[in-house]
Amino acid sequence: MSIVSKGLENVIIKTTSLTFIDGEKGILRYRGYDINDLVKYGSYEETIYLMLYGKLPTSNKLKQKINEEYEVPQEVIDAIYLMPRDADAIGLLELATAGLASLDKNFKWKENDKEKAVSIMAKMSTIVVNVFRRKEGNKPKIPEPSDSYAKSFLAASFSKDPTPEEINAMDKALILYTDHEVPASTTAALVACSTLSDMYSSLTAALAALKGPLHGGAAEEAFKQFLEIKDPNNVDNWFNEKIIKQKNRLMGFGHRVYKTYDPRAKIFKELATTLIAHNSEAKKYFEIAQKLEELGIKNFSSKGIYPNTDFYSGIVFYALGFPVYMFTALFALSRTLGWLAHIIEYVEEQHRLIRPRALYIGPESLQYVPISKR
Amino acid sequence: MSIVSKGLENVIIKTTSLTFIDGEKGILRYRGYDINDLVKYGSYEETIYLMLYGKLPTSNKLKQKINEEYEVPQEVIDAIYLMPRDADAIGLLELATAGLASLDKNFKWKENDKEKAVSIMAKMSTIVVNVFRRKEGNKPKIPEPSDSYAKSFLAASFSKDPTPEEINAMDKALILYTDHEVPASTTAALVACSTLSDMYSSLTAALAALKGPLHGGAAEEAFKQFLEIKDPNNVDNWFNEKIIKQKNRLMGFGHRVYKTYDPRAKIFKELATTLIAHNSEAKKYFEIAQKLEELGIKNFSSKGIYPNTDFYSGIVFYALGFPVYMFTALFALSRTLGWLAHIIEYVEEQHRLIRPRALYIGPESLQYVPISKR
Repeated sequence: MSIVSKGLENVIIKTTSLTFIDGEKGILRYRGYDINDLVKYGSYEETIYLMLYGKLPTSNKLKQKINEEYEVPQEVIDAIYLMPRDADAIGLLELATAGLASLDKNFKWKENDKEKAVSIMAKMSTIVVNVFRRKEGNKPKIPEPSDSYAKSFLAASFSKDPTPEEINAMDKALILYTDHEVPASTTAALVACSTLSDMYSSLTAALAALKGPLHGGAAEEAFKQFLEIKDPNNVDNWFNEKIIKQKNRLMGFGHRVYKTYDPRAKIFKELATTLIAHNSEAKKYFEIAQKLEELGIKNFSSKGIYPNTDFYSGIVFYALGFPVYMFTALFALSRTLGWLAHIIEYVEEQHRLIRPRALYIGPESLQYVPISKR
Repeated sequence: MSIVSKGLENVIIKTTSLTFIDGEKGILRYRGYDINDLVKYGSYEETIYLMLYGKLPTSNKLKQKINEEYEVPQEVIDAIYLMPRDADAIGLLELATAGLASLDKNFKWKENDKEKAVSIMAKMSTIVVNVFRRKEGNKPKIPEPSDSYAKSFLAASFSKDPTPEEINAMDKALILYTDHEVPASTTAALVACSTLSDMYSSLTAALAALKGPLHGGAAEEAFKQFLEIKDPNNVDNWFNEKIIKQKNRLMGFGHRVYKTYDPRAKIFKELATTLIAHNSEAKKYFEIAQKLEELGIKNFSSKGIYPNTDFYSGIVFYALGFPVYMFTALFALSRTLGWLAHIIEYVEEQHRLIRPRALYIGPESLQYVPISKR
């Protein structure tokens, strides 16, 4: 016991029936279903049912249940609006889930975990809507029941009916970010739930990890590159200067697990093409992204570094009308499902307190010396 | 790569120069100094300096700095008081640190990490004070500068000057809970900071993990046993019924790392004896605890199961005037130092994104079936 597992690379923290990734072949499946099929034929509500209950639904009951659960305690809404407009979006999400944790005093595991998770999925929509509205300087709003989770979310976010194209793009984006095995955020949630802490606190831990630029912040960082480049004609110069000469990391490229093109990146790219037609700004950033992708692949694909899911997702979110500061929060909205599915799987099927070790390399026993003699 | 490291047992997540534990011999050292020496000769402020800067201080500067940093943004205080009195104490701590995370938008690592940590130590005192005051139905209060962190904390908590005996007990309790290598809460903080998320979010993740009854909640659970037993004469019957017959777990006993008497438990027991003299209720619970300890050792010591730090700490906190619901929050106040020292050590000296794997055991590739044909 003396080798440090740096970054826990190749350490297996749990078994799972949720998500299968083949990083060499670029395959991603939820519960056995290929991500391409789920995006093509399914909906986010189906994905919620699939992830929590292990199979595709045979009725609309989950949709109804979600429509009934959008309300969150007023204190939590108030806490969000208490913070200034320029507060960090993920920090505000942490604040809201922590607030819910503080209010759910009698939480117990293994009592309708899945039904609670469905309710939380609705509440997270309300929370993300209100983080956005707070930051935009708008008044609180609870999503209204509809035939689509994505539609209710967009309608409440922007106070106007979204187009079918927008609903479709949001729905697919939610499916795409649903789960990705055990990245840092999911690991943080597992560590929290392993102490039998509550579901909301587990989500709070996940959000705390997601917040970092090396994880959830990546889509924002990728898009900030496009903003910095400004014009498709500047891509070559920017790439040579920033990536080749200054050796900055190309954001939205490379993944610990995928060594080929991320299957989600492909779909996000397709979604982006359907949305940019009516949006000249988004179109410009899409063109920048495409050119940058070409250069990135030319320079890095031999090292197994390809676009990841965060490379094009920002263009989809931007085309939907969301500012850059919301990208990670939108990721969080979708991933909440993966977090919940993983912690329920862990607590119900394979629970064990997570307690690794550290290797001590500090001084041997030292003699305490009074301050006058130091 | 197919063996699951359940609970990450024996997985080494990092190196450390902070805390050395010999679980067989019952030795605990911070930065090489034995916990018994630090408690006997040192103070919590010295421990803060030692943990963050790696050596014992030669001046009072850190004390002064702490005295200057008790203020926290008004929004964070307001968020705590927005929640109802019966909100969970650790949930409220999560809320407060998340609030600070949302406000600290320009946080960057490796810019005065240690100075920030000192400031956070002061702010955490303010937060815990106000979580307590909120739950007691009192008005907000900021700790006032004094010659002792423990004194400022107790004075603000209870709105009255603590006795030297109380200050001493609080100071020692803070030293005792400072760090314990990488339990779940510290691991959660490491996972969060590994994405380069901010310090406050890392603490939020730690709190989310600490909240569980298998971790920070243990002192409360241990004390609840004493409350349930009610009278020293009931210990034998209670033990036979609850522990032997019903095979409930004896809370405050046993530890993943210690296989002998936890050195902290010994010191907490001594501290308790100094405090119970003027407090008949606390004295009664101490007698219950002592009797229960005897039975526990008689029955379980052959399996390496001995009292851990949480067994007697509750009696100290109770004798200081804190209700049971505050025990975990007091643990958190002290442990914030360990969390901060570990995340700074990790980010500054050995940073790597934490990303373990899961072993997929679910269905192979499945064909998507439309709802009409399911």
